[in-house]
Amino acid sequence: MPRIPVVERIMKANDDVAASNRQLLDEHGVHAVNILAAPGAGKTSVILAVAAALKGKCRVGVIEGDLASDIDSRKVRMAGLPVYQINTGGECHLDANQVRVALDQLPLDEIDLLFIENVGNLICPVEFALGEHTRLAISSVPEGDDKPYKYPPVFANVDVLALNKADLLPFMPFDVAEFERVVRTLNPEIAFFTVSSTKGTGIPALADWLAALAR
Amino acid sequence: MPRIPVVERIMKANDDVAASNRQLLDEHGVHAVNILAAPGAGKTSVILAVAAALKGKCRVGVIEGDLASDIDSRKVRMAGLPVYQINTGGECHLDANQVRVALDQLPLDEIDLLFIENVGNLICPVEFALGEHTRLAISSVPEGDDKPYKYPPVFANVDVLALNKADLLPFMPFDVAEFERVVRTLNPEIAFFTVSSTKGTGIPALADWLAALAR
Repeated sequence: MPRIPVVERIMKANDDVAASNRQLLDEHGVHAVNILAAPGAGKTSVILAVAAALKGKCRVGVIEGDLASDIDSRKVRMAGLPVYQINTGGECHLDANQVRVALDQLPLDEIDLLFIENVGNLICPVEFALGEHTRLAISSVPEGDDKPYKYPPVFANVDVLALNKADLLPFMPFDVAEFERVVRTLNPEIAFFTVSSTKGTGIPALADWLAALAR
Repeated sequence: MPRIPVVERIMKANDDVAASNRQLLDEHGVHAVNILAAPGAGKTSVILAVAAALKGKCRVGVIEGDLASDIDSRKVRMAGLPVYQINTGGECHLDANQVRVALDQLPLDEIDLLFIENVGNLICPVEFALGEHTRLAISSVPEGDDKPYKYPPVFANVDVLALNKADLLPFMPFDVAEFERVVRTLNPEIAFFTVSSTKGTGIPALADWLAALAR
């Protein structure tokens, strides 16, 4: 059974396109952030809140990844940001080829910070490089504080984590300090922000941290 | 490139084991429910609330699927239910072989209703039959009411849907009627329950519906 060689060829082909994407981004001075999160963690809301906080300071663009629908890209377009929607059909993650098609459609010279919102999935997107410079994971309070134990790869393989929906902390048990402690056992160097995209709490600090990458 | 034949062989092999699992379950009079949901939707909490509601009426057993950790199986064991924990390593879904190992370890003659809690993932588990009789999807209010648009396959391919964390409805925008309407465009025959596993709302109706399957 040639299963492992086939998988290796697919991953190698993806890595090659990702490297080419990275080169294209660098040529245009774009810093790309690959966003990984479970469905409903608030990826689009965090992007929109960060973009609003950076208005006039840093030009934000967005690639939206979903199995289906253009709900998220319509929200982003209404906020006045350049956006490209990828519908994967049934695929559970974005790949570098899909991102390349999006990059070829976006006005890269008018973008400093490019958010690539991956498909809502805490597992599969971790394996696929897209050409990004930075990986941001978004967790949310109602998902529960045990997620680092159950999904260690995503927490171990990102540069920065935003714990979103902090406005719900009064309504459910969630030990933020213990959550951060477990995340740091998996990833000692991770940058950690507690935010609420709806209330705006913590968004300026996260936005400043991300904007600093794009300089 | 032999990619498609390889995938077909893998799926066929899984289907064969799933059919054998189903036969084993039927021989022991066990009704199996494959539970599909995003991370943090409350799969384990719903299982425990349903099992408590059925105490003395229907004997519940559980298979827990996670990338890592035994947090969920410890909770289930503390509730006095027979349970087997599958750790998939990095795999994003359960497969029929893993479930077969679990079935061989569980006291099937002491179980009427077997919950198979799949890995937290709204996409990949849909493709893999495990030998179950019924599929239950769990959505949760904080995930947002747009999920049927973004993840249509899971909503189209289950028998019953529980919308969990209804106790959070006062704190966020979520249109339950519109959510149910969109789900029914994908799946007209689906059974739909609005529940709160922490407050107990709606759990007796869901529990009775599931227990009726096992008779």
